[in-house]
Amino acid sequence: MSVYLHDIPLATAQARLQQALEEAGLWRVLGVETIPLDEGALGRVLAEPIWAKTSSPNYHASAMDGFAVRAEDTEGAGPSSPIQLSVISDQSSVQAQYVDTGDPLPDWANAVIPIENVESLDETGALTSDLRHPASIRIRAAVAPWTHVRPLGEDIVATQLVLPAGHTLRPADLGAVAASGHADLRVARPPRVAILPTGSELVPIGSALKRGDILETNSLVLAAQVKAMGGEATRFPITADDFDAICARVEEASRGHDLILLNAGSSAGAEDFSAKVVEKLGTLLVHGVAVRPGHPVILGVINRKQVDTYTRTQVDTEHATYHPVAERSGRNTQHATPNSQLLTPTPHPASPVPILGVPGYPVSAALTIDIFVEPILARWLGRRPLELPEVDATLTRKITSPAGDDDYIRVAVGRVGGKLLAAPLARGAGVITSLVRADGLLVLPRGEQGAEAGQQVTVRLYRSRAELDKTIFCIGSHDVILDLLAQFLAEHDRRFVSSNVGSQGGLVALKRGEAHLAGSHLLDPATGEYNLAALRQYLPGVPVRLIALVHREQGLMVRRGNPKGVKNLGDLTRPEVGFANRQRGAGTRVLLDYRLNLMGIPVSEIRGYNQEEYTHLGVAAAVASGRADCGLGIPAAAQALDLDFVPLFHERYDLVIPKEYAAGSLLAPLLEVIGGAQFRYAVSSLPGYDVKEMGKLILEN
Amino acid sequence: MSVYLHDIPLATAQARLQQALEEAGLWRVLGVETIPLDEGALGRVLAEPIWAKTSSPNYHASAMDGFAVRAEDTEGAGPSSPIQLSVISDQSSVQAQYVDTGDPLPDWANAVIPIENVESLDETGALTSDLRHPASIRIRAAVAPWTHVRPLGEDIVATQLVLPAGHTLRPADLGAVAASGHADLRVARPPRVAILPTGSELVPIGSALKRGDILETNSLVLAAQVKAMGGEATRFPITADDFDAICARVEEASRGHDLILLNAGSSAGAEDFSAKVVEKLGTLLVHGVAVRPGHPVILGVINRKQVDTYTRTQVDTEHATYHPVAERSGRNTQHATPNSQLLTPTPHPASPVPILGVPGYPVSAALTIDIFVEPILARWLGRRPLELPEVDATLTRKITSPAGDDDYIRVAVGRVGGKLLAAPLARGAGVITSLVRADGLLVLPRGEQGAEAGQQVTVRLYRSRAELDKTIFCIGSHDVILDLLAQFLAEHDRRFVSSNVGSQGGLVALKRGEAHLAGSHLLDPATGEYNLAALRQYLPGVPVRLIALVHREQGLMVRRGNPKGVKNLGDLTRPEVGFANRQRGAGTRVLLDYRLNLMGIPVSEIRGYNQEEYTHLGVAAAVASGRADCGLGIPAAAQALDLDFVPLFHERYDLVIPKEYAAGSLLAPLLEVIGGAQFRYAVSSLPGYDVKEMGKLILEN
Repeated sequence: MSVYLHDIPLATAQARLQQALEEAGLWRVLGVETIPLDEGALGRVLAEPIWAKTSSPNYHASAMDGFAVRAEDTEGAGPSSPIQLSVISDQSSVQAQYVDTGDPLPDWANAVIPIENVESLDETGALTSDLRHPASIRIRAAVAPWTHVRPLGEDIVATQLVLPAGHTLRPADLGAVAASGHADLRVARPPRVAILPTGSELVPIGSALKRGDILETNSLVLAAQVKAMGGEATRFPITADDFDAICARVEEASRGHDLILLNAGSSAGAEDFSAKVVEKLGTLLVHGVAVRPGHPVILGVINRKQVDTYTRTQVDTEHATYHPVAERSGRNTQHATPNSQLLTPTPHPASPVPILGVPGYPVSAALTIDIFVEPILARWLGRRPLELPEVDATLTRKITSPAGDDDYIRVAVGRVGGKLLAAPLARGAGVITSLVRADGLLVLPRGEQGAEAGQQVTVRLYRSRAELDKTIFCIGSHDVILDLLAQFLAEHDRRFVSSNVGSQGGLVALKRGEAHLAGSHLLDPATGEYNLAALRQYLPGVPVRLIALVHREQGLMVRRGNPKGVKNLGDLTRPEVGFANRQRGAGTRVLLDYRLNLMGIPVSEIRGYNQEEYTHLGVAAAVASGRADCGLGIPAAAQALDLDFVPLFHERYDLVIPKEYAAGSLLAPLLEVIGGAQFRYAVSSLPGYDVKEMGKLILEN
Repeated sequence: MSVYLHDIPLATAQARLQQALEEAGLWRVLGVETIPLDEGALGRVLAEPIWAKTSSPNYHASAMDGFAVRAEDTEGAGPSSPIQLSVISDQSSVQAQYVDTGDPLPDWANAVIPIENVESLDETGALTSDLRHPASIRIRAAVAPWTHVRPLGEDIVATQLVLPAGHTLRPADLGAVAASGHADLRVARPPRVAILPTGSELVPIGSALKRGDILETNSLVLAAQVKAMGGEATRFPITADDFDAICARVEEASRGHDLILLNAGSSAGAEDFSAKVVEKLGTLLVHGVAVRPGHPVILGVINRKQVDTYTRTQVDTEHATYHPVAERSGRNTQHATPNSQLLTPTPHPASPVPILGVPGYPVSAALTIDIFVEPILARWLGRRPLELPEVDATLTRKITSPAGDDDYIRVAVGRVGGKLLAAPLARGAGVITSLVRADGLLVLPRGEQGAEAGQQVTVRLYRSRAELDKTIFCIGSHDVILDLLAQFLAEHDRRFVSSNVGSQGGLVALKRGEAHLAGSHLLDPATGEYNLAALRQYLPGVPVRLIALVHREQGLMVRRGNPKGVKNLGDLTRPEVGFANRQRGAGTRVLLDYRLNLMGIPVSEIRGYNQEEYTHLGVAAAVASGRADCGLGIPAAAQALDLDFVPLFHERYDLVIPKEYAAGSLLAPLLEVIGGAQFRYAVSSLPGYDVKEMGKLILEN
């Protein structure tokens, strides 16, 4: 087994897989089934074109409530020359007949006069109130032939193409298909995808975690992706890292499925068996693709040995209803009822089955499905591959990328001042929240080594433009009440995206036009005031509103019981005390340095002073894990990770909002929320916050 | 009962409905249920925010396969000053330990060195091939603390906001929710919508149609719309036009549903009972809205009398599992299992139920759901209302609209020569295919009386921009093989949209830059040649390729057995023979006039000469229905409607393609298809076509 993977280019890997599928006769619609025409057909893909069997309407129909007439009988009628047409009469001389909208026209008629345009008369020739059953009607205008008539075939003419094969059915399509005389549909059968989580360290969702346990979340995401793409996913139980057990599981899965996703063990580590399994059971096509994240991808084809036991119900001589024994997740199986005919041929016993070794990191896994599986499912369903809409945006900061890789970078996208911005998110393959937060993907193709800040880039969007236009970008210092604010704003039709770069970083970003507002708690050592000096320094000449959000306690977070007995900043110099610091530019860092300076404590005496975390919770996590013994931060963060808190100081945390945004409609709900009682109450119930000045305008320049 | 509806403005009607829902306490999330965290959660809407219960990773994890070390032990290591670290040793002096990716870091370690960066040594200090179980390792570079380590909380820190309430769940979200320690979810319960088709003329889908029967297709479309919006639809059987029967049905539906859609009977006709039903059972809020199509809309609230028999299973003291007795369509009910807790409170016995009277025309019905029901379902689910992406496009022709109405006009959208064009489709409320063909909606607001050709308009898009960019606009003369071509092109990733305006109309549209190609069969009476003279006349100076598609027969379509004995054009002058003509500019019309002229037959002697149809199939339908006795056209159209055909002439049907498009990638698949054997074979199997010149370049100028 090799330690290194020799990655091949993405395009080469995709081509090799497609060629293998073509050679195996699997680069086509996998199967066709007949389903009843009901709302369950929504989202299914037509396997055959729909040609109209009947016309709609299939007779000449009245388009109005009114009287069917012969147009020629109305000739000459005018305001002062009314014509009277008999309604009740012997058959041969009927001249008008009441029709409702949709009623067929009598054979002798060729036009309809709306009821509001006639005078209804009784037998004596007087006006009658029984508008729909008069003896005759009087009209004062002639009508042309075919007026207010929907002629046969107005909507659909028999034999016309209603929908092409490969079309994904939407609600209105179902109506058109029904109106054209069809009562059922021939659609591509959903590809059946087996998802096999492997790994001795994995535990199912919901397990209490021991150290070293990893929640098996990938199969859930993969199954949801497959479902969203129109496939049916089967999630298998976790298989331990055991070569024979994995081989047995793959063979089991191969029997009832069209595609196997083996997750993970796709790299070249000691317990990475995927490649060996594929080699044993079939052909290993690719091991390692030059794509980031996700490079330890395996592509292969295995040989399906035998067919599993299926429950079959004879429907006709040619076809059988298919009920897999294995519990099926994903698309519901409501069609497998006596009312439907699932004309799915069982997989041929000796047919090959493609298999993907999917990397274990969650972002790698999800992107591997998008990149490799989606095009296969599209082909198997006969539809177009999904394409994300693209948009041009300005990159907010420089990114680098290995020249040999296709690099998929998650970005947040929002409109700030007329400009659409793309801000790169955390790039670690383990950070699933980077996919959750992502508004789109920036793909740096093989050959490019990065992109510069300010460069125009093309982003594949996950969200609609309308959503982006409702996105508030907040940058700067982190406080947990920003999360609470995000929740309140979600209820006011705003998406609040905060990124944490510290107070100074936030003001610099505001200056660059990269956010709508910044959270800041920058102490001016000279005056003891918050933020005013910093605004003069970082945003000179920029009209802003400085609005107080909260007063909050700052203090030392320590483990339960304060085992190192830390009481004040002086204790940080004790050799057995390890400290976790915030990054340069963070307000908490400024506060620390200010206080250390007042107290004459040299930073060189503090172990861990140079170990930087980017959020309060990051510091809390460092303390909770034992990586440090204490760190300066806010009580909410301590409470979050079940730490004790030693209060030391108070500070004001403000929002800095450039006037051009403060006055706009985008931020109006934000100002409303922080001015309202509900949010104030919610914040005051958190420990260590004082809301007395919330919403107060500190400065407007 | 009034004959006229007094339409109120759309915004007023919507506000009145919202106010009634607010007063009834129904302008909120209807209910919350707990569901297991599996792929069935996809598309559900969070009823509560997700705050992280655990961190991810919840320990310091190795990010690589390699050796965990203390960074301080590596200080000083360099290419020529290697450091040796012991792996096998007594507990106290272990300096390196093998870890796989994802393994927890030993307590004493704070960095990982990837396996490819170490030399593995045996007890003697010699290199060993057992890379993962050496006695010691040799390194030639120092590492900084926390290198190749994923610290606790790198992805998710306990207590942080993972997702806000109101968020619609996507695949990656499920992974983040699971990773943050949740095993189930609190989501909005799907609103339950009853769809009540009424009408004595209605027959179920799949029925053999008698004259006057109308297929009940609306409930299918409405149910699919409700499902796509996140609701659950129940389609009730058809109720006849009977006041008491409809009342009983509405009361029945009210018991287990949150919203009732009564379709149709919403106008003011003789059999329109909806308004009276609402008045009897509750409060009629609105009857008639100034919106086109769809104005006879009814909005009301009825009083739910009593609770239906539900199957209840006691889950806990507060909540009950809910199983409606009525068969539920739409979203599957997989969650109503012992594994899940459906914490749906049963509807309060005396609670009000909103009811909509939905117009009967299919386009009106579908748009009524989009306009009135979608915002209610969004509110009930706690999500944002759906918003279609908007795009600016150039209107291809003038449209008029009543000033008092909000007018929803279906348009086809495509890019022709860099310009995005919006072409209005059939505006009849009965033409469901106009919704199927629509790429978007152009909304002319109340107060506007229309829009001019060439005007920039805003279109709400149903399709992605990527799809629009793959759309081929064909205009001109109609032939049924264009439908066949559309099907072939769908398989080549192109959408082929043809609109039928006749040969001359097509060339004029090409000149205006409104299409990529035109179908034309314009005979030049002077030369007997096809299309060449017309190109000189309509497209002077425009470089085009003229490509032969087919030779086809033209002749007279007559009913089976040719009851009027029509043999040639001379018979058209017989008084008992009614003719159906094509519109001015159609190639078939030119052919007719040319032949009549040769034969010296005055058009005034032909009854029906002025009755114009826009397609071959339109003419065929006129003959089939008896509206005319014969019409000139092609054999495929006659065959389509089971007519006899009297062949008279041959003509060539060409494609006219401006060079700028003929050379582009958009049309490449089209040229490939008409040059290939498969399409040629498919066309030759239709009656009356000769494919000998298919694809031949007639002219390139």
